[in-house]
Amino acid sequence: MTTIDLNADLGEGYGPWTMGDDAAMLDVVSSANVACGGHASDPETMFRTLELAKARGVVTGAHPSYPDLAGFGRRRLPMPPAEIERFVAAQVGALIGVAALVGQPIAYVKPHGALANVAADEAPVAAAIVRAVRAIDPGLAVLAISGTVLERLARDAGVSVFSEVFADRGYAPAGTLVPRGTPGAMIADEGAAAARLFGFLDSGLMPTVGGDPVALAVDSVCIHGDSPHAVAMARHLRAAFVDRGIAIAPFLPR
Amino acid sequence: MTTIDLNADLGEGYGPWTMGDDAAMLDVVSSANVACGGHASDPETMFRTLELAKARGVVTGAHPSYPDLAGFGRRRLPMPPAEIERFVAAQVGALIGVAALVGQPIAYVKPHGALANVAADEAPVAAAIVRAVRAIDPGLAVLAISGTVLERLARDAGVSVFSEVFADRGYAPAGTLVPRGTPGAMIADEGAAAARLFGFLDSGLMPTVGGDPVALAVDSVCIHGDSPHAVAMARHLRAAFVDRGIAIAPFLPR
Amino acid sequence: MTTIDLNADLGEGYGPWTMGDDAAMLDVVSSANVACGGHASDPETMFRTLELAKARGVVTGAHPSYPDLAGFGRRRLPMPPAEIERFVAAQVGALIGVAALVGQPIAYVKPHGALANVAADEAPVAAAIVRAVRAIDPGLAVLAISGTVLERLARDAGVSVFSEVFADRGYAPAGTLVPRGTPGAMIADEGAAAARLFGFLDSGLMPTVGGDPVALAVDSVCIHGDSPHAVAMARHLRAAFVDRGIAIAPFLPR
Amino acid sequence: MTTIDLNADLGEGYGPWTMGDDAAMLDVVSSANVACGGHASDPETMFRTLELAKARGVVTGAHPSYPDLAGFGRRRLPMPPAEIERFVAAQVGALIGVAALVGQPIAYVKPHGALANVAADEAPVAAAIVRAVRAIDPGLAVLAISGTVLERLARDAGVSVFSEVFADRGYAPAGTLVPRGTPGAMIADEGAAAARLFGFLDSGLMPTVGGDPVALAVDSVCIHGDSPHAVAMARHLRAAFVDRGIAIAPFLPR
Repeated sequence: MTTIDLNADLGEGYGPWTMGDDAAMLDVVSSANVACGGHASDPETMFRTLELAKARGVVTGAHPSYPDLAGFGRRRLPMPPAEIERFVAAQVGALIGVAALVGQPIAYVKPHGALANVAADEAPVAAAIVRAVRAIDPGLAVLAISGTVLERLARDAGVSVFSEVFADRGYAPAGTLVPRGTPGAMIADEGAAAARLFGFLDSGLMPTVGGDPVALAVDSVCIHGDSPHAVAMARHLRAAFVDRGIAIAPFLPR
Repeated sequence: MTTIDLNADLGEGYGPWTMGDDAAMLDVVSSANVACGGHASDPETMFRTLELAKARGVVTGAHPSYPDLAGFGRRRLPMPPAEIERFVAAQVGALIGVAALVGQPIAYVKPHGALANVAADEAPVAAAIVRAVRAIDPGLAVLAISGTVLERLARDAGVSVFSEVFADRGYAPAGTLVPRGTPGAMIADEGAAAARLFGFLDSGLMPTVGGDPVALAVDSVCIHGDSPHAVAMARHLRAAFVDRGIAIAPFLPR
Repeated sequence: MTTIDLNADLGEGYGPWTMGDDAAMLDVVSSANVACGGHASDPETMFRTLELAKARGVVTGAHPSYPDLAGFGRRRLPMPPAEIERFVAAQVGALIGVAALVGQPIAYVKPHGALANVAADEAPVAAAIVRAVRAIDPGLAVLAISGTVLERLARDAGVSVFSEVFADRGYAPAGTLVPRGTPGAMIADEGAAAARLFGFLDSGLMPTVGGDPVALAVDSVCIHGDSPHAVAMARHLRAAFVDRGIAIAPFLPR
Repeated sequence: MTTIDLNADLGEGYGPWTMGDDAAMLDVVSSANVACGGHASDPETMFRTLELAKARGVVTGAHPSYPDLAGFGRRRLPMPPAEIERFVAAQVGALIGVAALVGQPIAYVKPHGALANVAADEAPVAAAIVRAVRAIDPGLAVLAISGTVLERLARDAGVSVFSEVFADRGYAPAGTLVPRGTPGAMIADEGAAAARLFGFLDSGLMPTVGGDPVALAVDSVCIHGDSPHAVAMARHLRAAFVDRGIAIAPFLPR
């Protein structure tokens, strides 16, 4: 491997409020998951985020969510898959509409928060997302958590799928993420996270909590943008990649 | 003239609430202006409205608005043209996203309520709408009130423009609508409205309040769907057209 | 028994949208559960509803809900009890604020929809509602579904509690409502519903689905206001009470 | 003068988003204007803000606004005074409801942003706010910008009124604020702002842009909490007061 993609969730402000430092994170990542009105954002915020990404040559995807500004998309709402399909279509469509003003393509879709967690495990919800993506544009890719139901269903449907791993999250022997709040879920130490990630990128095998290492596909590494030290950690990780001769490049062409 | 288009504003519910009888109106009109989240609607409502329209062969357009559910888009909000451009793009994009699930094309854009009134008179706002339409899809048409700045700017920009007149609104000698609340603004009598409309369609000259008749372009007649007698009036008008040998047909191909 | 209270959920419009015929229902009921911004309503709608109630001498209560306009409060949202307590306090407080402009007291609190269902069974949520009610005004009563955890906890906390039954809902042998969508949940026939209700009011024993009749406390009968035939059914029921010599009167003094 | 009140707008987050550093500002001010759902906040945010204020002995007031989260209450919305009256009553009522859970009184009302500007000049809007305040609780005070129509109408109505001046804003000879965006509107230099303020507090005469100094009533000094250097400036000002032997104390009793 000589290149890797770094992706982060960006454009997560709303009206007068901001979340994290988008401009700084866009100097680090190669792909940006742009909020599109579900858990965050509005047309002005979408526009400014896409302009910042375009200026830096960062590839942009849509980051749809349960419609839940108050909960930032972190809560599972009681919505049937058909309703999820329509909300995803409306959110992705809205971002595509604004992106047309910027002249910046929307290249992929990555579900956010609780929706991503549900789509990782439950086929009806994963299938609803895949249907929305295909209906809007068969050329849209899906960025899925490696090893999930969403990854498999998107591939089965003939959609281009890219797989992401997390530097700072623990994995279970089945290849799934250890749920937040469970021992081993978070890897707080920056150096430990980086070392584990490089070992995985070399071997293809991710260490797990209480089991053997597991093989995971990887096209991108997800880094978090909304913690206090997010920018510092992101820069550290990027520098560590470059030190090892691995260039940062998007998984899809600019 | 052997055909005319009838258009109405539809899909104007929100969540559990409905507005008017969409199914009945869709049996009358040939083009439907579908709310897209600005003054009304949500992804479920968009989906159901587009399905009803598709089943009846009614052509559908997007009906963007100031973002103002509480005011139903009837209030002018203090937003600069650039912000309007982004809201219009997001709303039209959201509807196109949902329409992709239905397999029903969005063929045109018609601004709603206060936004339509402002775009009728003010070039910066009209130009913002035209920019959003062109950026999203150069094949999208604009449905404009006949004689307005929006109609002229869309045409100047090379966008397909269609012009609508109102059966139940009074016109000023300049070809503009008499503002609501002013004497002569509304034509309450159904028969009088129909007679005036047919005279206009025969002659191309619309009677005005306190002046000479004025020439107006016409591709479509707008009928209102949200008053108590809306459906009865719409059916009456449609029957009157058919009695005179004028077929109801959309201004754009199905 | 020579009097009974009839209550209905009212003021459930939002912005330009209405739900049911509030003025007609307010001629029938003696107590009105007024939406306060959770599942429906806004300050204008609250104001108009309270004015209509005041003009008719109808007693008014607050009808708080999960904050869920899009789902009309019918969905259980993933919110901890402490958060529910704060939302209930804010909604009840908002209605009390508007009621001060009308000069119409808010006399009681009745939870709406999914929140009422959860509070019927789960002590932490019922306790959160009781805490909010007591904190705002120890003189506020609670109107609870007869036989529920909310009824019991409110009484244990020293809050005035009144109990309601439903004319058109089936009961399980435990005295709880048969869940919607289950056989026997709804009693569609108007005459059958009235006959069953009168039998219960005479005997204090409510027939159940698949079991013996159950004793239920009753201070009020809840009638539904949002179905197409709601007003006709409500008038029918009121007339039937009056025919039997039972006057309609609020459970709390005007 | 041996004491002065310092007030700031606080609790201006929404859902997952924050604005400024409330805890730090609450260590500086003696009165906090707490957002109540119009331009910012939700029940959780209200609760946390009131708890922080209570823990520090800071007096709290309600900070109602045009209902405009997207515009942070900085835009004048086209609403008639009667509608403003109802929105103000609902917002103040909601905060009072949440405050009852905290056991922290709401002692006064200060309008926010565009609503404050309109109420400074226009009697119908100022009167609507005064009516809402009096209806909710005749014991509620009003905190008004010194020299405004709101200050005068509240006093005429028998409401307790307190007057605030701004350390960092320029004044016109009429005693009104120089509008933002106009030369002299903002005083950027911290030392200059403090020196001007102390001169005013000594003499009762405020320097103006292009005219003679003007006499202004003063019970409180408003400091801004949402700029990057807000906390530093606020601490600087507080220390300067203390250096001059002026204690910081609320204008209303704790």
